[in-house]
Amino acid sequence: MRDSFEIRAQDVAGRIGELRVPRAGVTVETPTLLPVVNPNLVTIDAARFSEFGVEMLITNSYIIKRDDDLREAALERGLHDLLDFHGAIMTDSGSFQLAEYGEIETTTEEILAFQSDIGSDVGTPVDIPTPPDVEREQAEAELETTKERLHVAEGIDTGDMLVTAPIQGSTYPDLREAAARHAYATDLDVFPVGAVVPLMNEYRYADMVEVLAAAKRGLGADAPVHLFGAGHPMMFALAVAMGADLFDSAAYAIYARDDRYMTVSGTEHLDDLEYFPCACPVCTSHDPDDVRAMDDERREGVLAEHNLWVSMAEIRRVKAAIHEGSLLELVERRARGHPRMLDGYRALLSHRDQLEASDPVSKDVFFYVSAESADRPEVARHHDRLSRFEVADDVLLTEKGGSDDFDESWRVVPPFGPFPRALSQTYPLTAELPDRMDRAGYEAAAEGVSRLVAANPDSEFTLAHDGWPESALALVPARVALVDLGSEDSNGTAPEDEQ
Amino acid sequence: MRDSFEIRAQDVAGRIGELRVPRAGVTVETPTLLPVVNPNLVTIDAARFSEFGVEMLITNSYIIKRDDDLREAALERGLHDLLDFHGAIMTDSGSFQLAEYGEIETTTEEILAFQSDIGSDVGTPVDIPTPPDVEREQAEAELETTKERLHVAEGIDTGDMLVTAPIQGSTYPDLREAAARHAYATDLDVFPVGAVVPLMNEYRYADMVEVLAAAKRGLGADAPVHLFGAGHPMMFALAVAMGADLFDSAAYAIYARDDRYMTVSGTEHLDDLEYFPCACPVCTSHDPDDVRAMDDERREGVLAEHNLWVSMAEIRRVKAAIHEGSLLELVERRARGHPRMLDGYRALLSHRDQLEASDPVSKDVFFYVSAESADRPEVARHHDRLSRFEVADDVLLTEKGGSDDFDESWRVVPPFGPFPRALSQTYPLTAELPDRMDRAGYEAAAEGVSRLVAANPDSEFTLAHDGWPESALALVPARVALVDLGSEDSNGTAPEDEQ
Repeated sequence: MRDSFEIRAQDVAGRIGELRVPRAGVTVETPTLLPVVNPNLVTIDAARFSEFGVEMLITNSYIIKRDDDLREAALERGLHDLLDFHGAIMTDSGSFQLAEYGEIETTTEEILAFQSDIGSDVGTPVDIPTPPDVEREQAEAELETTKERLHVAEGIDTGDMLVTAPIQGSTYPDLREAAARHAYATDLDVFPVGAVVPLMNEYRYADMVEVLAAAKRGLGADAPVHLFGAGHPMMFALAVAMGADLFDSAAYAIYARDDRYMTVSGTEHLDDLEYFPCACPVCTSHDPDDVRAMDDERREGVLAEHNLWVSMAEIRRVKAAIHEGSLLELVERRARGHPRMLDGYRALLSHRDQLEASDPVSKDVFFYVSAESADRPEVARHHDRLSRFEVADDVLLTEKGGSDDFDESWRVVPPFGPFPRALSQTYPLTAELPDRMDRAGYEAAAEGVSRLVAANPDSEFTLAHDGWPESALALVPARVALVDLGSEDSNGTAPEDEQ
Repeated sequence: MRDSFEIRAQDVAGRIGELRVPRAGVTVETPTLLPVVNPNLVTIDAARFSEFGVEMLITNSYIIKRDDDLREAALERGLHDLLDFHGAIMTDSGSFQLAEYGEIETTTEEILAFQSDIGSDVGTPVDIPTPPDVEREQAEAELETTKERLHVAEGIDTGDMLVTAPIQGSTYPDLREAAARHAYATDLDVFPVGAVVPLMNEYRYADMVEVLAAAKRGLGADAPVHLFGAGHPMMFALAVAMGADLFDSAAYAIYARDDRYMTVSGTEHLDDLEYFPCACPVCTSHDPDDVRAMDDERREGVLAEHNLWVSMAEIRRVKAAIHEGSLLELVERRARGHPRMLDGYRALLSHRDQLEASDPVSKDVFFYVSAESADRPEVARHHDRLSRFEVADDVLLTEKGGSDDFDESWRVVPPFGPFPRALSQTYPLTAELPDRMDRAGYEAAAEGVSRLVAANPDSEFTLAHDGWPESALALVPARVALVDLGSEDSNGTAPEDEQ
């Protein structure tokens, strides 16, 4: 067990965690967002971050080291005093500059020592952020370099500063997984999944999910995972559901500079807004005309505040959802913000076996709110369970009441399929369902029937369904007798409703 | 044209309107929410409503009339002074008390005169709020009484006070439509769709949509429609998309009394919250423990403020969406808040012909974000258009590039189906689509193919599709030749991609 991270609650692959940051003397609750502070270009004073609920920030040690005044001030007074922030401070190493400009003038040894000297609480080695879609050879070669840097980092005495172990591998899931396995085997502390910014910029949320899913397969559950450079609130719920714990955002400030206004379902441009679709302190005390009339500095400041308010509120919303066991319901809502977010959600659901390992067996409630709900891990888990049930010789599976004409009568409810009546009050069979069920739900129920029937080759089955569509009935094994409850009149021969 | 209401922008059946309220000397922008003020039990002072963006409130003239002190004060000082509110004030008549207690001690003549005397800007006759699901005879009989009351109301001189014409009819769509047609033919001004509170309380959003859709069919487009008693922000977008303009909310205050905390996707109980999932001024300056520790009055006050902040922010969000042409995208997101909201959205889409009449032909963007997106009015409209196209003798319909082997080559894009390449840059064919398209989208595209083929019986068609599912291919007419682009290798015989 890594002693700097403890998990308090779980939902899907998301968790509420406590990251102990010994050098800062604080424990940070995750998921959390680290605002990026560029010491040369301050948009919101770090002294004000606690108002927003910020517990941790990130700044760039390479920028500080390269600037004579900043370097001297940081070495003399320490980072916390320099930034006037007394939570936890993570520092980046210059890897971003390396990716942008091709070279930097420092080494892992040097920059980690500098980070330690200026009082950083969480330091970062100089990894190689390999972009998406490069040739495999490049991804492999650069990953080897990153691994060497982690080895160097392990050997440096940085006192009680935590040190990150970035995970690279471009868009090759097997490389990401191997990189994660290697990183987890070091004694380093925090695991940033790197070089995802280009995926974010192109709305490639499905690829982001694949990269994160691969990294998670290589990491133990006790590894705190940082999605490096990801800071848009629209994707927090999705990334947390796939197992991310830490985010960082320069976006709240950079977007503000371009008059871009963040929401949980995308980004708007100030010029296009007639109303502020938000209840934050900025948006309830100004309207868009007010803000457009402000001078550049003030406008940038209030937009950055708005961006940070909505981002931190979304972090709280994600944490509330984990506590409540409704994180997938939140992802469902966020998936409708953009077609690429829907791709991301569909990618997430394609990993339902991986998700099932951490997803709690019982939650308060399951809301069926789309065809995607039929692909949730809870449905797969119920189907797996059906393969292990033994039933009597002659079984009625019915959407309505039982019948004495059979040895045994089970309920059938889309999307789960059949289950013994005694389980009716257990999760997820307590799900709230729409009256207007969709094909996906009926088909999943038929798949459940199929699993139970396959597990009991010597039993006879009758399925009494209430007008299931053809596509679902086609999935029911041929040896199951079918009764359509909807086609019988109320005095007909259908099994009685015993409710 | 009714001169008190003017429509400024439309999306789906929703609109931004201006309701001129002459007696108040103000113009109220709709959609809007009228907080209910119970003069005996003030939770938030009406003097503070303008902070929240409230332009209009509603209070109950019957309660005022029955209380000696309130009556005298209202008659002497007028309602605006009594409540210290200088926007528009609507008054209810006691119909709610009639529904609750079976009888009241007033008449339409008397209460309308009283409303006028105390300075109400919008008065209400004593209609009969028939609950859902009653026998048809009761609904019909009570509707006759309501109609008589409207007739009485028409005959009373109430100066420049606007007067409402409530629409009843229980859950009988034909009665609601007839009631609306009758109400619209009066010279009354505002059209409340009444007795929907029981539907709201039971989350019967699909039934709410049916009732509202029926009322809208009986009303002219220039009628301002009030969904009487509906005040939960989770359903504003859905109701506006079906044509509601005004909402009123006692809920912001009543919920607060029970420690209930509203969100745009449902209601939480304060006891269950570890975090406030919200960025409003209350939730960014307090945490749930702070609020739980407050005394009853203060706790009720801050929860009511939160409830009103999120409600008014949702109103702004709805208005922003109408301006942007993205109201259905907002409804898509809200539909994932609860299975019954999904029912409501599916009910809305079942009225797509009705919606199409007001839905703009061109918008900025169409986001395909669920299987329901394939049922949007824009898709139906494109399919209708396909029935009117004439094509050459031998036509290629293809998801990739064209080919010289055919007289003509059209693009095919799910969910729309085929279209001439010249239309590629026109709405809705500019839609943003997921990479992971669903069956519903492919099937809608196949339906489009089918419509074009049926309209051109003498032409020959080849459909070059990229791996469509069987369920979609089954909808393509048998006389269309099929080429699966996905099954050809890249040097194969498939038409070239000309992009």
